[in-house]
Amino acid sequence: MQKNAVSSSEHSKVLTLDTMNPNIRTMEYAVRGAIPIRAEELTAQLKAQPDSLLFKKVTPCNIGNPQQLQQKPLTFLRQVSALIEYTDLLEPPLIETTQKLFPEDAIARAKRNLSFVNNAAGAYTQSLGIPEIRQNVAQFIEQRDGYPADPNNICLTTGASGAVERVLDMLISSPNVGIMIPIPQYPLYTATLAHLNAHAVPYYLQEEKDWQLSIPDLQRSLAEARARGIDVRAMAVINPGNPTGGCLLESNIVDIVQFCEQERLVILADEVYQTNIYTETNPFVSFKKVVSKLGSQVELFSFHSISKGMVGECGRRGGYYEAVNIDEQIMGQLLKLASVGLCPNVQGQMAVDIMVNPPQPGDASYELYRREMDDIHQSMKRRAKKLAAAFNLLPNMSCNDTQGAMYLFPRVVLPQAFVDEAKALGQEPDALYCMQMLESTGISVVPGSGFGQVPGTFHFRSTFLPPEELFDEFIAGFKSFHIALIDRYSKA
Amino acid sequence: MQKNAVSSSEHSKVLTLDTMNPNIRTMEYAVRGAIPIRAEELTAQLKAQPDSLLFKKVTPCNIGNPQQLQQKPLTFLRQVSALIEYTDLLEPPLIETTQKLFPEDAIARAKRNLSFVNNAAGAYTQSLGIPEIRQNVAQFIEQRDGYPADPNNICLTTGASGAVERVLDMLISSPNVGIMIPIPQYPLYTATLAHLNAHAVPYYLQEEKDWQLSIPDLQRSLAEARARGIDVRAMAVINPGNPTGGCLLESNIVDIVQFCEQERLVILADEVYQTNIYTETNPFVSFKKVVSKLGSQVELFSFHSISKGMVGECGRRGGYYEAVNIDEQIMGQLLKLASVGLCPNVQGQMAVDIMVNPPQPGDASYELYRREMDDIHQSMKRRAKKLAAAFNLLPNMSCNDTQGAMYLFPRVVLPQAFVDEAKALGQEPDALYCMQMLESTGISVVPGSGFGQVPGTFHFRSTFLPPEELFDEFIAGFKSFHIALIDRYSKA
Repeated sequence: MQKNAVSSSEHSKVLTLDTMNPNIRTMEYAVRGAIPIRAEELTAQLKAQPDSLLFKKVTPCNIGNPQQLQQKPLTFLRQVSALIEYTDLLEPPLIETTQKLFPEDAIARAKRNLSFVNNAAGAYTQSLGIPEIRQNVAQFIEQRDGYPADPNNICLTTGASGAVERVLDMLISSPNVGIMIPIPQYPLYTATLAHLNAHAVPYYLQEEKDWQLSIPDLQRSLAEARARGIDVRAMAVINPGNPTGGCLLESNIVDIVQFCEQERLVILADEVYQTNIYTETNPFVSFKKVVSKLGSQVELFSFHSISKGMVGECGRRGGYYEAVNIDEQIMGQLLKLASVGLCPNVQGQMAVDIMVNPPQPGDASYELYRREMDDIHQSMKRRAKKLAAAFNLLPNMSCNDTQGAMYLFPRVVLPQAFVDEAKALGQEPDALYCMQMLESTGISVVPGSGFGQVPGTFHFRSTFLPPEELFDEFIAGFKSFHIALIDRYSKA
Repeated sequence: MQKNAVSSSEHSKVLTLDTMNPNIRTMEYAVRGAIPIRAEELTAQLKAQPDSLLFKKVTPCNIGNPQQLQQKPLTFLRQVSALIEYTDLLEPPLIETTQKLFPEDAIARAKRNLSFVNNAAGAYTQSLGIPEIRQNVAQFIEQRDGYPADPNNICLTTGASGAVERVLDMLISSPNVGIMIPIPQYPLYTATLAHLNAHAVPYYLQEEKDWQLSIPDLQRSLAEARARGIDVRAMAVINPGNPTGGCLLESNIVDIVQFCEQERLVILADEVYQTNIYTETNPFVSFKKVVSKLGSQVELFSFHSISKGMVGECGRRGGYYEAVNIDEQIMGQLLKLASVGLCPNVQGQMAVDIMVNPPQPGDASYELYRREMDDIHQSMKRRAKKLAAAFNLLPNMSCNDTQGAMYLFPRVVLPQAFVDEAKALGQEPDALYCMQMLESTGISVVPGSGFGQVPGTFHFRSTFLPPEELFDEFIAGFKSFHIALIDRYSKA
């Protein structure tokens, strides 16, 4: 063995907190932050010692991850995926047996989708995604909105997160650039802006108006940022809202589009929850539809995903964005950027195809697919309403009725004694509240401070995804924790 | 319809080449650059008009994408993947029929791997990847190297590209940071460094010494960069080499590790071709093994992938990195960075598991798996040797025998008249050579200028992946193109 130039004890690290990329160091991402990490520890503890805690299981409501909580995948999607994996099933001698296990339309769909890639699902695809699937996405958008969509404007991606990061990356040319983001917001936006060293320019969602946007507040926010010399270039909108569960009215979207066009802002429309809609009054309307209807020239990126909706294929990592009114040369730059990452994973692309082009009436799988979608949708709606109602019955808590997405974002009025205690511990009061909830009930939610909120108010985000048969127990857990805490600190 | 604030004709774009992130604009990525884009156009043209060109099909040798060129996927990997997709196959009433289609070890493996995720392959996993699979990766590394590996140091990723980007991103804290990269190199490195606005500090691989590294050249390169004030922090090594096909000797790796330790450089070891080895003289030796053997404290990231080797699952996007001797707080920052992207796709993770933990002697699938692996390996070796021999028989061309990877990187001595013509056209001579090759033969390769080369020399990178039964025809295409070109321009 050769002698080292520097002995182990002397060797200080090259890569440390002090030397690393400072933009990554300052980045925060609460959805998978301290509370979920503690939740993982508790899960491991319960696995080793089932009776060692006040509760029997951890209930992860910190993230919209429905199959983690026993939501069943869509049968047709998984049948087609299985056949794409093991193509011997589609050929003699296995095909005869395969026909006993799989419906004919799943077999036909697998064959068709394999033909898109010359039967090589294990090869890199085009970097923007398989052309036929981009075509199908465009048709889906046309049918949804009633306005044309161009497959050349569609790019398949590794979930919506990677797509949002890529577009923000294109937009941010210097640390002086700012992007308007909602408060509260999904922390992908603040995390990515911190990472890319750009300004997050916050605007507030109006809690008292079901989280609709206020144009005067947008104007105020933009004017303040521009007065500080920030080059504000784009505005992110999450609709249906994450973490709020609100769904924007068409009239509100019209106002936002006109505001962005006037103010020369690119619109980033995060529309991954577009099918998670629970009211008649606030149907989903896409930004693309409004832009088309207005004949607006505003530049728009719209994001969609297979992780949400009733598809809920989070682990597969699939999605797309549509680029509308984007400069032709920028489209070329986006292609180049996509090409360095080679391509989005093929099974994610195939699932996008099924999401946008599901079985049709007359197909063997149509009834089952429809029923599975409806069952999931109706169940989500019931659970959302039930949880909101439960929150609204609690003291020191109020919650807007959910309109969409997978979340509720109740407001909690924390007793001053609790707030003081948190501050003494150097913690955000809502973070302490959520950590105590986890430690005493096993329920893992995300504090409002992880999303941003009006100063002095406290919230948390909870999914309503625990399985329906366990839902009452889940609500009881919330309730007893909350009442005991309010009680204890109100007396204090 | 409401009136727009700005009419269409007046609306200039917000996001343009002038306003976009300039680091993305300057980035280049030749592997999917002008030549492969033209190759896609020609493919589309042949689909529409099969007889409209001088050749009947496009042969994509620009990228290591074996299944695109008819390499069959590993049966066991695809069987397990199919069962993970459609879990009804594993339960009554379907399981009885499933047993007729799938071997028992594939069924057992699917069940076992599903148990890692509580049967929810559609859920997000832990951001670093499924813990049991990280454990299996650690065992694989221990068996490969004979030194311990810690599962806490393993992070599953979306292919190796995303992993390399993530680690470079951590390392680059300012535009003054430099990373040593080989020349020629896989352009992921120059592209990512341009994107992250850091210095690429080039060192040369020695073509005349089978592409081994020269320590004096490393010292020269580092000294020059440091003299210019560049904060050189890390050194990337690609072994086996891309685009060169060289494989480093253990003695060379020992020297490199000691150089990096002395000079306080983090090592980035891109080892994705570690099983693509074609000679007895240059077996693959991992950097991790050498670091362990030396008892070195040098910081090391080692990258591996399911896209290469005999697995060749490019479209699936799976891989991992091992972090060795990395500061504990940096490990936390890497976890946070991973968490913003939620998790690598589950089917990619499952394929990593099969790659590192294949069927064992006595398992039902062992013989088939072994045979498929061997057949692919032997065929790659035959094709590599055949292509190198063919290149070496051509005038004005010389090529090192391949030792590993999926590529040859022959040197072409281009006639001065051709070089002059290219310069008059404002093109790199080897880029013009490759474009003419594509237009006249349908063979798509990447010019040496896309990887970097000693000034005044010209090369191209070609895979040797066309199917064996078409290989003579493929070589004949190269040959007639090259001889005609040399002939024409030597006379000129």
